[in-house]
Amino acid sequence: MEKIYLDHVATNPMHPEALEAMLPFLKEDFGNPLSLYPPGAKAKEAIEGARGSVASLINAKPNEIIFTASGAESNNFALRGIALALQNKGKHIIVSKVEHHSILNSARFLEKSGFAATYLPVDKSGLVDPDSVQKAITKETVLISIIHASPEVGTIEPIAEIAKIAKKNNIFFHTDAVASAGNIPVDVRELGVDALSMTAHQFYGPKGAGALYLKEGTRIVPLIYGGIQEGGRRAGTENVPAIAGMGKAAELAKRDMGKRSDYVKTLRDKLISSVLSKITNVYLTGHPEQRLPGHASFVVEYIEGEAMLLLLSAKGIYVASGSACSSKALKASPVLLSLGIPSHLAQGSVVFTLGEGTKEQEIDFLIETFPQIISRLREISPYSKGWEGTEDGTCTAKK
Amino acid sequence: MEKIYLDHVATNPMHPEALEAMLPFLKEDFGNPLSLYPPGAKAKEAIEGARGSVASLINAKPNEIIFTASGAESNNFALRGIALALQNKGKHIIVSKVEHHSILNSARFLEKSGFAATYLPVDKSGLVDPDSVQKAITKETVLISIIHASPEVGTIEPIAEIAKIAKKNNIFFHTDAVASAGNIPVDVRELGVDALSMTAHQFYGPKGAGALYLKEGTRIVPLIYGGIQEGGRRAGTENVPAIAGMGKAAELAKRDMGKRSDYVKTLRDKLISSVLSKITNVYLTGHPEQRLPGHASFVVEYIEGEAMLLLLSAKGIYVASGSACSSKALKASPVLLSLGIPSHLAQGSVVFTLGEGTKEQEIDFLIETFPQIISRLREISPYSKGWEGTEDGTCTAKK
Repeated sequence: MEKIYLDHVATNPMHPEALEAMLPFLKEDFGNPLSLYPPGAKAKEAIEGARGSVASLINAKPNEIIFTASGAESNNFALRGIALALQNKGKHIIVSKVEHHSILNSARFLEKSGFAATYLPVDKSGLVDPDSVQKAITKETVLISIIHASPEVGTIEPIAEIAKIAKKNNIFFHTDAVASAGNIPVDVRELGVDALSMTAHQFYGPKGAGALYLKEGTRIVPLIYGGIQEGGRRAGTENVPAIAGMGKAAELAKRDMGKRSDYVKTLRDKLISSVLSKITNVYLTGHPEQRLPGHASFVVEYIEGEAMLLLLSAKGIYVASGSACSSKALKASPVLLSLGIPSHLAQGSVVFTLGEGTKEQEIDFLIETFPQIISRLREISPYSKGWEGTEDGTCTAKK
Repeated sequence: MEKIYLDHVATNPMHPEALEAMLPFLKEDFGNPLSLYPPGAKAKEAIEGARGSVASLINAKPNEIIFTASGAESNNFALRGIALALQNKGKHIIVSKVEHHSILNSARFLEKSGFAATYLPVDKSGLVDPDSVQKAITKETVLISIIHASPEVGTIEPIAEIAKIAKKNNIFFHTDAVASAGNIPVDVRELGVDALSMTAHQFYGPKGAGALYLKEGTRIVPLIYGGIQEGGRRAGTENVPAIAGMGKAAELAKRDMGKRSDYVKTLRDKLISSVLSKITNVYLTGHPEQRLPGHASFVVEYIEGEAMLLLLSAKGIYVASGSACSSKALKASPVLLSLGIPSHLAQGSVVFTLGEGTKEQEIDFLIETFPQIISRLREISPYSKGWEGTEDGTCTAKK
């Protein structure tokens, strides 16, 4: 049976050229970029080349890119590093309720450190209202961070509008672009953001390489102290192979973005309209138009997300869910709840995310298979008793 | 001209088997370990396998290993995460003056956050006196962190003795074993440490993978917040390939440690005795016996470290220096100064570190070449005017 991977929002296969770009640095060119002799210089050159490519992808300057090891690290670094650098100016930050855990939990950490935080609500399509940002601003506000695109419901936020409000009020603005950078056009000048997080494995680069765009001249408190890597702002021996792979992936993303995006969008639209027409009591989550091109997320009534996942997996179709048991997290998805989706419905979340390798016949097979799975699950029971306790023990179906 | 790499303390080539272990996860097995379907499970399995291997290398339990992206991250995580977790008990920490910058700068960060820090002196061989640890302890002391082996002078500290003192006083004890773990026997039970930092590329594993050993039941404040990876203690999509490579490298290190160590020690001893006998006014830095097996570090009077580095590099011999310009850092090495080495002498630092791939004829060539280089440099000038401003502009010779 052919496997059908429709979880590109979880992670992506590497582009063969990105792997190719890594290999020399995994083999003969293993030098430490800080070393003064030629192998060190070669590693340094690879990093600076990658920095140029990543900068170019988002229309930044190379010296505005700091390499990290993940999107989560970039988010922690930005939120806490900027807030700490600005704490003498004020101790209030604003984020939305649909942020990634790396932002939400960093905000909570700041709250424990004496900051106040506002968590902005979203509408039923997941959009943050720019007016609500304006209203939340106080004299103490030093930092606003709003996600660019939600990995869970696909919604793309009106970042440029929010950035204008931040700028007008002279407040630093960060966006978590982990799910969007490399997949849709991200131009830091057009968006008007001061900082932006991204990660390579979301655009066919390697795991272990992330980046933080930080506008020239910004002061930030390091998250990882140590040596003088990344201008003294992020210590640790550079993961040269992964950074080289990220650089190549950024180059390819810039070149192929339009083509990739058009391709997955066509398939996604076919998938969305088929699911909505073939299955009863199913709802698209997130914004119908302002969404990531390869992103199709639903909630299915009377069904549990993990049950769908496991039956789809049995058919060789690999997808995600924002439900209680998805991703081995035991809490109900706060993102879905913040969209006003009732918790019994949020349980039935399923997220299909397409990639450049997705084939039309795979989507056709899914369109044929998925309604059958839903029918079968609904026949068994609305609460899927069979799924109480999965193999690894992390999931328990609600009674 | 054959290249001779004698800077294994900066980084190491990967063992081919470690690279082999990474490749499937850089190619077809790209799944996210958090995903519930089979490719996710395969990635998860690789991580848990690696966790077992890393644990076994240092005689820990698998659940006592937290993967990070670097030794620097492990050190920041341990020092700050433990201090913050214990701050209600007291706000004093003890480190030594020969710690890595990732410890020293984390300690300074804690000082800014209301902690007090004691920086213990060392003797002329770089050893911390366990009695000085005992004397530094106050009622407020919650954490002691002493480096296991210095990458700069090779000295191995009396960690087991210091750990006993910490234990007797009921104080948490961390050691930075980045330069030692995988190279000399490191047994967390025998050493009696509560936490220990390590990194893969120091024992022929990949860059981008580090680990923190944390004794079962220890509470730590995360450095990187976000998802539920690593038991909620270190977020970010796992760098599965690098972790798999680290696991394999740990296995090999456990198996081959004795052989590797004996081999480099023999060559190192030959190098040390030749350098000391063939060159005048040269001194071994660090402890003559209690030192890393492949580590030979010197200060050469009337010479600048970077001048030696560049002339050696011109002969295809790649080494490090703890002097002002080494590693592109502009400050004089605080480690050498803390050993009581006067700054004019510390300028003439050179560090040769051998690895399992080092050949005897390479050491013979070095033994022949190095005294010639020293003679030549001393002929030109005691202050090497020719080296004022190097190619990349980071070094300026002192007048």
